[in-house]
Amino acid sequence: MKKMDYQNVRGTQDYLPKAEMIRKKIRRTLEDTFEQYGCKPLETPILNYTSLMSSKYGGGASILEEMYTLNDRGKRDLALRYDLTIPFAKVVAMNPTIRLPFKRYEIGKVFRDGPIKMGRYREFTQCDVDVVGVDNQMAEAELMQMALSVFSQLNLPIIIQYNNRKLLQGLLESLGIQQYLMSNVILIIDKLEKIGILGVKEELIEKKINEESIEKVINLLKETVGKDINYFDQFATKNELISKGMEELKELTEYLTYLNINKQCIFNPFLARGLEIYTGTIYEMFLQDGSISSSIGSGGRYDNAISGLLGTDETYSTVGISFGLDVIYAAVELNNMINYSSQLDFYIIPFQFRKEALLVATQLRTMGFKVEIEMKIKKMNKALVRANKEGVKQVIFIGENEVANNKIKIKDMESGIEREEIFLFDNK
Amino acid sequence: MKKMDYQNVRGTQDYLPKAEMIRKKIRRTLEDTFEQYGCKPLETPILNYTSLMSSKYGGGASILEEMYTLNDRGKRDLALRYDLTIPFAKVVAMNPTIRLPFKRYEIGKVFRDGPIKMGRYREFTQCDVDVVGVDNQMAEAELMQMALSVFSQLNLPIIIQYNNRKLLQGLLESLGIQQYLMSNVILIIDKLEKIGILGVKEELIEKKINEESIEKVINLLKETVGKDINYFDQFATKNELISKGMEELKELTEYLTYLNINKQCIFNPFLARGLEIYTGTIYEMFLQDGSISSSIGSGGRYDNAISGLLGTDETYSTVGISFGLDVIYAAVELNNMINYSSQLDFYIIPFQFRKEALLVATQLRTMGFKVEIEMKIKKMNKALVRANKEGVKQVIFIGENEVANNKIKIKDMESGIEREEIFLFDNK
Repeated sequence: MKKMDYQNVRGTQDYLPKAEMIRKKIRRTLEDTFEQYGCKPLETPILNYTSLMSSKYGGGASILEEMYTLNDRGKRDLALRYDLTIPFAKVVAMNPTIRLPFKRYEIGKVFRDGPIKMGRYREFTQCDVDVVGVDNQMAEAELMQMALSVFSQLNLPIIIQYNNRKLLQGLLESLGIQQYLMSNVILIIDKLEKIGILGVKEELIEKKINEESIEKVINLLKETVGKDINYFDQFATKNELISKGMEELKELTEYLTYLNINKQCIFNPFLARGLEIYTGTIYEMFLQDGSISSSIGSGGRYDNAISGLLGTDETYSTVGISFGLDVIYAAVELNNMINYSSQLDFYIIPFQFRKEALLVATQLRTMGFKVEIEMKIKKMNKALVRANKEGVKQVIFIGENEVANNKIKIKDMESGIEREEIFLFDNK
Repeated sequence: MKKMDYQNVRGTQDYLPKAEMIRKKIRRTLEDTFEQYGCKPLETPILNYTSLMSSKYGGGASILEEMYTLNDRGKRDLALRYDLTIPFAKVVAMNPTIRLPFKRYEIGKVFRDGPIKMGRYREFTQCDVDVVGVDNQMAEAELMQMALSVFSQLNLPIIIQYNNRKLLQGLLESLGIQQYLMSNVILIIDKLEKIGILGVKEELIEKKINEESIEKVINLLKETVGKDINYFDQFATKNELISKGMEELKELTEYLTYLNINKQCIFNPFLARGLEIYTGTIYEMFLQDGSISSSIGSGGRYDNAISGLLGTDETYSTVGISFGLDVIYAAVELNNMINYSSQLDFYIIPFQFRKEALLVATQLRTMGFKVEIEMKIKKMNKALVRANKEGVKQVIFIGENEVANNKIKIKDMESGIEREEIFLFDNK
């Protein structure tokens, strides 16, 4: 026979048990914490109509280019979801009796046929929490507190940068940036930390923004970078967006301060976030130790997207936060601080006493233990080598003498101490 | 604006929180039990090369017709996985250093563009456990015991029917059924319980099996239906397949009897299972109360598939068991025996004391409680109605008096009793 040579599709990968144990632990930590915050699980399909996924309130033009599309046998135009937000909005649309506020989380696969970078895959797992129906900043404060709780449980201290799109957009408007250029300018400013003030200036020039506005933007950046929120009070009278943005920022900051998490939550007036949909608070999370430089989660308020998607004038105040399971996994792996091994409590070496081994294993499992029976190796030494490799806590031997006398021999692998315990083989 | 009308793709569906809470509980029960049995988690991609998924050791021609295919931007021919077995075999192939026996489980979405029946979807979740590297019947006994444990934890008592393909095939061979007709005849016999002996006879005639063989098959069915394993001893000398099959069946039955699960595990000499790949033990699980008539899980031994897929002469003894999350969910729902509510421990009504409510919630969550803050309703009565609807255990009120005196008021919703507790608002 010809030995087949298999490989994974570019941008996809297998997670072998060692990795998957960690991912499972992360997933449960997220789920449990989300539920402590009163969020409820939702599961939406991966297969969607292309028309839904490409709605103009979706992920925007660049994501649409990365959308996997296909036809089913009924010739329907289908697409694999590229995020969990549109499916969430769809559920809100399809279930008009859902009680608001609706706080849901979903952890699931999404697909983007885009460039592959370090830690960026084409098939990956997103973990989203979204709250629809709360128009004040408590929702934001709670999501940020929740993020801190998640990462503290994972031993990954983070910093959350936050800002408000109304403030940012209001400032740019006050400097004469025109509406049709706004998204572009915001996207460029978002790169400030990466490319510096000069870099921002160059990109603004490339976009053919008028010279005077560029000068004003650059001056503002120089003047205000690193300043705290109160510094921006002086701009509040310039337009309504700035004053509304400042009001929201101050409400949020008051909560963060009272919760004593204002050291981990830092105002950054030029945090912008790529997506166009945001309308208020935005935030982005980074590892404190910088071991991974890209953000480890992000989100914000998008009050218009759901109503836009639904084609209704009703307002759906919505705030979301999104974590990437793959990047969290990479961080846990890198920091290697948690032992998520699937360590076995007992490893049974049955010699020829197979049915007896099955019985012992079953009883131990009923008591909650993780138990494996050696089903292949027949030599004691080899079996012990394996037990050591697997980090087994205790090994159980079942031999002729043990079965005849209704007992089992147990060896503690750390101390090396052997003991006997009663086990009724003939009298169950 | 035009109100949009969204719907799900045929064969897919959303699971709203009430359903998803149950599904999450089922999933965790499966995961935890699988790990008690020494199985380890694996995660494989949904996107695969079409060439892998359509390998001849895969799911067979009828499944291939139901395969969703697509092209990515790099013009690769891709397919969505239709089961978890081929991805598992691929992982074994791609990781030659994996230690055998390798016991893995995977719970994940699979896709089949086939007919939709009650409880059958096009996008659904499968839960598979496979053991590669064990050539004796302990593996089967353990998987069957594990299935009983899973369903007993879910309050869904099951019956497992089991048989051995070697016995069945050997018997048919001894009756003169030719090799090229074997799969067809086995598939027809598999319907015995559904269509009865006459139905089987009709279908055999349709397949143009010769009359003499049909007569012999029908006589065998009449003679042996409901008989126990020992009855088949008389056939053991007819050919090697029968004798090997009987040997395996007796080994397995000895284990099941010793484990005292032979009341729930019932030998059925004409259980056949659809798939061609099986080579030894096969089993199928049914609810004892018959509330769902289709099987709720199934599996068996397939010793040739992995080596076939890999194109190697090495033997990979493999046994698997597969559960459908959707059918288990349907059963739990129907039987309605378990309360998997996401009941909140505390529901905080903050009036205007928002930041104080956030602080109380955070502290309670740190202690492990599920807590929700009412962020929208401003009237006490309305908030209490909601608390009742959600089945909240305790409601916390934070008013002016409470904050001023560093206390919170807690009402137990079942007893109606109110109490006060100290909470340091101004002294944290």
